[in-house]
Order: sequence, then C-alpha cells, then structure tokens
Amino acid sequence: MADTEPDGSVRSVLRALDLLALFDEEHQRRSIRELTTLSGLAKTTVLRLVGTLEQRGLLWARPDGQIGVGPGLLRWSRLAQAAWQLPEAVRTVMRGLVAETAETVNLYVRSDAVRLCVAQQDGPQKLRHVVNVGDEMVLWGGAASKVLLAQADDALLLRVAALSPHGPGHARTLRADVERAAREGHAVSHGERETGASGVAAPVLAPGGGSVVAALAVGGPTARFTPEAVQGFTTAVTRAAARISEIGLDPAGGDGPTTGAGAL
Amino acid sequence: MADTEPDGSVRSVLRALDLLALFDEEHQRRSIRELTTLSGLAKTTVLRLVGTLEQRGLLWARPDGQIGVGPGLLRWSRLAQAAWQLPEAVRTVMRGLVAETAETVNLYVRSDAVRLCVAQQDGPQKLRHVVNVGDEMVLWGGAASKVLLAQADDALLLRVAALSPHGPGHARTLRADVERAAREGHAVSHGERETGASGVAAPVLAPGGGSVVAALAVGGPTARFTPEAVQGFTTAVTRAAARISEIGLDPAGGDGPTTGAGAL
Repeated sequence: MADTEPDGSVRSVLRALDLLALFDEEHQRRSIRELTTLSGLAKTTVLRLVGTLEQRGLLWARPDGQIGVGPGLLRWSRLAQAAWQLPEAVRTVMRGLVAETAETVNLYVRSDAVRLCVAQQDGPQKLRHVVNVGDEMVLWGGAASKVLLAQADDALLLRVAALSPHGPGHARTLRADVERAAREGHAVSHGERETGASGVAAPVLAPGGGSVVAALAVGGPTARFTPEAVQGFTTAVTRAAARISEIGLDPAGGDGPTTGAGAL
Repeated sequence: MADTEPDGSVRSVLRALDLLALFDEEHQRRSIRELTTLSGLAKTTVLRLVGTLEQRGLLWARPDGQIGVGPGLLRWSRLAQAAWQLPEAVRTVMRGLVAETAETVNLYVRSDAVRLCVAQQDGPQKLRHVVNVGDEMVLWGGAASKVLLAQADDALLLRVAALSPHGPGHARTLRADVERAAREGHAVSHGERETGASGVAAPVLAPGGGSVVAALAVGGPTARFTPEAVQGFTTAVTRAAARISEIGLDPAGGDGPTTGAGAL
C-alpha cells in the first residue's frame, strides 16, 4: 500500500478515522473549513476523505450544507452494544464495589496507546469521577494505566510517554510504576492525570490467569482517598477484579453463540 | 493521495470500512484467514488494515487470538444515538401510523447507493416486515427507494441499477418509477426486493419543503396489501410523512444546542 506509516498502519485510514473523531456529542455537525482547520490536512484531502466516509454512511452531507454524523454509525452502535454488553454478573460485581466504596467504578481496556472505558457504575456522591462508556483516556497516568500496561514493551511505553506532557523520559517512570503494580497486584494514583483526582485499580485477567485484559478502577476526589480509605479501596477493588476475572468479560460467557462464530 | 478511486474516494479507507463491515452481531470475531477470504484482499493488506483499525480501538486482538469488535465502537455508538435520536413527536407520528395501518413503519434515509433504516415502529402482527435500525437496504427496489431517489442524477441511478440483479438497464425503470413517485407524492411496491413483501412510502421533506431527506414507509406481506388496503395506507403514510416534515428530523428541533455547534 502506498500510504503506509513507519509502524505499518495505513495513513489515509488513520486520517479518515481522525476526521470522524472530530465529531462528538457536542459537535454533531462541522463545516469543511472547520474540519480542514482542526485536522491540519489540505482541503482537497479533507474533501476526499469526507466523501469516502459519506459513501459508507458514516458522515452525511446535511440539508443545511454542513457535514453531519451519518446514519451508518447506527449499525456500529448495535454491534458495539452486542459485543460490549458485559455479563450481568460483572455488572453486579461493579455495583457491589460502588456500594462498598461509595465511589465511581470504571472498567477500562487498553487500545494501542490509550485506554477506553467499557463499563461504568456511577458513585452515589455529587462530587464524583465522570467518565462515559466509550471515552478514550490517557495511558500515561492514572492507576488503571499502570495495570493495563503490564504487558507493554519498551516501544509502546515510549509511544505512551510521547503523548504525555512529561515527554519520552516519562517511559522510565511508567516502567517502574507498571512493575510495582504487577508486584503488588494493584495501583494507586493521585492527581497524575487531573489535579485532585485519585484512583485505585486492579487487573482483570484472561481466562486461566495470565495476561491482563482489563483494569477495574475506583475513582474520586483525592480528598476522599486518604491512606485509610485507599487501604479499604485496595482490598475491595482487588477482590472485585479477581471475581470479574473468574466470570470473564465475554457477553456469552465464553460458551455462548459468539464463541467460535468466527470459525470458517 | 496515492490510492484514489476513479470517483475520488480513498481506496484504503473503503477497504478498511468494508473489513469492519464483515463484523456483525452474528460475527463478532473473525480470524485473519476469514477476513482475507471474505474480503478478497491480500493477507498483508488485511494485516495492515486490521492493525490500523486496532490502533483506533475499532477492532481488537482478542485474548483467544481472533480479531474482535473493538471498544472504540462504543464511542461511535454514543454519537450515533445522540445524532439520530429522533424527536419524540416524530416517534409519536410513527406509532400513530402503526395504529392506523397495523403494519410495521420504517423511516429510511439515503446513503450513497443504499438506504439505511433510521427508525422503526413494529407492527402488531406476527407476520411482519422486520428491519433493524441501522440496517442497510437496497435502493434498486422497494417503495421507499423510489421516494429517496427523487434528486438522483443519472450517474447515481446507474450505480444503484448496477447493484441490482437486473443490471444497468434497470436505471431506466428506476427513473420512470422515481418520476411517478414525485408526481403522485407516494410510491407503492410489491415483491420488488423480496417476494411477498409490499410497501407504501411517502417523502419527508427538508424544512421549507424542497428536497427529500427521508422516506416514511409501511411494509408488510403482499397478501395484506390489497388495492383497498393500499389506498388507505397511502392516505395514512402521506399524511404522517407531511406531519414529520413539519416537525423535522433534528433531535434538537432545529433551535437546540446542536444547531450552530459547528460554527467555528
């Protein structure tokens, strides 16, 4: 392929997906001028990519002349919900953890150099950690990141560090944090990603133990994450994460219709 | 861009989206071999595209070694729901139409050479038209298609016809059907797309009248679409579509926070 990046990924596909990422709930329509400015791409490139995304219904030329979010995304919506609807037993564990800690509980998975929130149970207090399902968050900070990077090689840590405000040198700090999290079975963070925000996270492991597939985290204001509270949170999160590892994240429980559906 | 198609769209982006389209609710995971076979692409191309989609979380390398639907789709899911959540008043009109006709009611928009279902109200009978929100359907047949193609130029009709089992010559038939639908303000079809399935559709117009933005359709078994029934359905669908044109499809009703959100 002509437009391959040094890491083997396809440049025009990344550009198209990045254009799509300029749309969110607060920006459901954009002008070509805006897309050009925000993406830093040439206008002709933007026009071609938008036209291509329109062809598949992911964007659409609105009657008002702006570019809008296309109905083709509705198909992905159904699919995402089917694929990422967690077992009810996992939600029960997460609700139990909220009851125990009175903080918001999130489940994250790693996606390349970022993490994504795949499930959330809101805490009961007014001042709370707000992350939406599907939200992308940084991997260069936060308790969940240290857990999720357990299998990261140096190249990945460098890429994660490069996205941080601390620069590439942050890779060394990350490596130490990741090793500590692996040794202790959990991670704690205070104000790394956002001043005044703290978190405690523990790993969800693949069936049979082994690799980390997700991080379970409680998050809230640092003022409530006192040393005593953190001790309690750590016990609770670690136990809940172990329970979720046993249940598994597969909506079909690993034996249902989706397993093996990919066999030709 | 190096990989531009004759129509100006970007080949690798289309290929990536087509790979993604090989995943659906019944196929939430696929092997690289399957993806290669089903796409007809070279394995190296598939590997690069899958890697690129993984980078943005749309696919992910599952712990079982297969390629799965990525959590990044959850972000699109939220966005699609925010953007395509129709005003409650539109849903009320659609429910009223179900009550009046006792058939399933769908709302379609055109997306290039296909149409997509953006809303549905199920009919009350057991034998009924089943289309899911987000489903892609053909534009070369069906009552809704004749309504949606109102502004189609010859090039689009040719592309739509090329996708039909009738070949490019079908463009002429389509043109006649589209003109008739425009003249009469509605369209009727029997068994065009699927034997035994009939439909009646009417246009939803852009604010201020003018261009067709969607088609409202009732669909069901031909046996229930007798000439007398079709006459009643036509009156009901045409009236409901006119009412929806007045309300508009914008979730924010045209004055809400999404309007103008695109202004830089």
